[in-house]
Amino acid sequence: MSQIHVTRRYRFCAAHRLHTDQLSPEENWTAFGKCNNPNGHGHNYVVLVTVTSGVGQDACNLDRLDQVVCEKIVERFDHQDLNGDPALTALTTTGENIVKLIWEILKPELSQGRLHKVGVIETRDNYFEYAGAN
Amino acid sequence: MSQIHVTRRYRFCAAHRLHTDQLSPEENWTAFGKCNNPNGHGHNYVVLVTVTSGVGQDACNLDRLDQVVCEKIVERFDHQDLNGDPALTALTTTGENIVKLIWEILKPELSQGRLHKVGVIETRDNYFEYAGAN
Amino acid sequence: MSQIHVTRRYRFCAAHRLHTDQLSPEENWTAFGKCNNPNGHGHNYVVLVTVTSGVGQDACNLDRLDQVVCEKIVERFDHQDLNGDPALTALTTTGENIVKLIWEILKPELSQGRLHKVGVIETRDNYFEYAGAN
Amino acid sequence: MSQIHVTRRYRFCAAHRLHTDQLSPEENWTAFGKCNNPNGHGHNYVVLVTVTSGVGQDACNLDRLDQVVCEKIVERFDHQDLNGDPALTALTTTGENIVKLIWEILKPELSQGRLHKVGVIETRDNYFEYAGAN
Amino acid sequence: MSQIHVTRRYRFCAAHRLHTDQLSPEENWTAFGKCNNPNGHGHNYVVLVTVTSGVGQDACNLDRLDQVVCEKIVERFDHQDLNGDPALTALTTTGENIVKLIWEILKPELSQGRLHKVGVIETRDNYFEYAGAN
Amino acid sequence: MSQIHVTRRYRFCAAHRLHTDQLSPEENWTAFGKCNNPNGHGHNYVVLVTVTSGVGQDACNLDRLDQVVCEKIVERFDHQDLNGDPALTALTTTGENIVKLIWEILKPELSQGRLHKVGVIETRDNYFEYAGAN
Repeated sequence: MSQIHVTRRYRFCAAHRLHTDQLSPEENWTAFGKCNNPNGHGHNYVVLVTVTSGVGQDACNLDRLDQVVCEKIVERFDHQDLNGDPALTALTTTGENIVKLIWEILKPELSQGRLHKVGVIETRDNYFEYAGAN
Repeated sequence: MSQIHVTRRYRFCAAHRLHTDQLSPEENWTAFGKCNNPNGHGHNYVVLVTVTSGVGQDACNLDRLDQVVCEKIVERFDHQDLNGDPALTALTTTGENIVKLIWEILKPELSQGRLHKVGVIETRDNYFEYAGAN
Repeated sequence: MSQIHVTRRYRFCAAHRLHTDQLSPEENWTAFGKCNNPNGHGHNYVVLVTVTSGVGQDACNLDRLDQVVCEKIVERFDHQDLNGDPALTALTTTGENIVKLIWEILKPELSQGRLHKVGVIETRDNYFEYAGAN
Repeated sequence: MSQIHVTRRYRFCAAHRLHTDQLSPEENWTAFGKCNNPNGHGHNYVVLVTVTSGVGQDACNLDRLDQVVCEKIVERFDHQDLNGDPALTALTTTGENIVKLIWEILKPELSQGRLHKVGVIETRDNYFEYAGAN
Repeated sequence: MSQIHVTRRYRFCAAHRLHTDQLSPEENWTAFGKCNNPNGHGHNYVVLVTVTSGVGQDACNLDRLDQVVCEKIVERFDHQDLNGDPALTALTTTGENIVKLIWEILKPELSQGRLHKVGVIETRDNYFEYAGAN
Repeated sequence: MSQIHVTRRYRFCAAHRLHTDQLSPEENWTAFGKCNNPNGHGHNYVVLVTVTSGVGQDACNLDRLDQVVCEKIVERFDHQDLNGDPALTALTTTGENIVKLIWEILKPELSQGRLHKVGVIETRDNYFEYAGAN
């Protein structure tokens, strides 16, 4: 079946540091380079949330989507240190883990099958995308 | 089979107003908020047309594509009020309806299977995409 | 004296039509072309407000700036037909008139000498800038 | 199975000319227009390389990807005339042929199944994308 | 006196090569690096033309500006090799020489004092700007 | 005298926190809001360095400029916490202070009068610019 998709853009600014306790300091440096610098650095993250939509009654309610994403994603991560987030403390704060976490947070908040994919732009040259099971 | 896709970018500037005669004034306001303001507002719409292409004889003729899109889409919608378009008078001029209409206009103008998807950027933060049956 | 300048970006979506009652319909068409189409069209306007700033006590209060621009500019023009704005009814809604009007609205709202220049992006290829007397 | 994809952006500046020895000068002009001008022209090409990634051990090594793309693509094409490239001398240097060539160069350099798709932005309004067999 | 400025964006795609006959091949390489590669490379050039404008009768006629820039700049340089341009054969085709040449071509075509500045974007990271005597 | 200016774009990703020891915690929060969050946040900073240039012998050596900016600015701030920088520990890491610091670092590294202005993009909507005494 043909579907219409709508993508909405959101943003948050956050600090992070690539580091895992499972590696020694030297191994962390080898794995992550300058992204492992002790005091962290940061990014202007862009989050692209794509939902299925339709015409008339099947259109996605974008006000509701904005409310969910702002409350669950933007307010949680904006102007924070991602390494301190409860869901990420045991994980390295790579783009892969961040985009997957955002999918997992948003999915139960939206109607069944509504969430189509999530994208995260970390820097001008780095983009992460994830579409989990529906 | 692997395929090459080419996306061409087009633009039109248009006025519109989200409104449906099936709802009362109050219901229209509840549904569409400021997008329902009586005198309308407008956007710099970007249209992204993606076609299947190939190498050599199978390449899509982009001059022909430009001619079709300019004649059927840009000339029709540019510097117009979308609510006055014959195909949209009975519909709300949402991004969903606009992207679907553009697909339906372009599909019969191109060779069988050539049209792959259509995207419409309405504002910096709003993107609509549609791929109908082929 | 060397000065630091800060530029903040704002947006509004609005309809407009280039037209003046001082010209006949034919003259309006000659002067403004498709921008004179009777039902109007619209744009995603970007407004760039540049203020002088400094370090420490001399820094511009950006929260205050945001409040002023949102209240006086964005709320006034967003999702409206510019031709219906009281300050523009007697004027053609060209980029020149819009950027000058925004300067004149903002200037008395900010401290003496704070406003440095105002820019308006009307379309991808059209940018207007004005710096009035201080 | 759900997968995470990472897209990295690379660039090269190159000259090219659309021309094929299989056509007469007149036919070349008919087919390619000003892109057939004898001394060539050029572009700031952007290359978007999308790979499958994962979390933890399944993450794609982006340093390795950068090394491969810089060595095999950027160093080969940057500040060159594409028509003189050995793989393109017998081909017209269309976006279709370039994006397909980049896929074919990168595929054997990466682990089985790692390369997901390749995109090439030729101009602001022209984008080519290819995902070959894996 | 306060003035309004309008900036219009134009584009051309061209090949070029940094090289001067006044230097030996080795010196050319030392001076220009890979930009001296024998067969040239190319760019998507963006040209930003800024003119003084005003309100009412003092507004700049943008149709006339478009006509001048398209005829004198875009048609001359688009899909060409800049090193073959008569005005540049004796000069190195640096951004500095190109932006200055565009100023000198446009100035006599516009009313006295109308041309305010010219900008040239050569690559994402390189921007040249010139405002000659008026 | 007319001058040509060249602007080069650089980037660094860094963490920071708006905070001054001269204010109480409550006053810091009032002054800086969420930018005062204890663990800091971060940005993808863009630095635009504009130098005077000319033609022939008067052209600015961009390789030398790149070397200076990379060594003195990018290597110093990239993937760091700005609050830990020696020149900023006694200052709040506002855009104003950062753009002024970059000017002061670069000025003595370049020939007399070469540095024209420095710009810093902190977020999509925030731009700081400074031109000190020459």
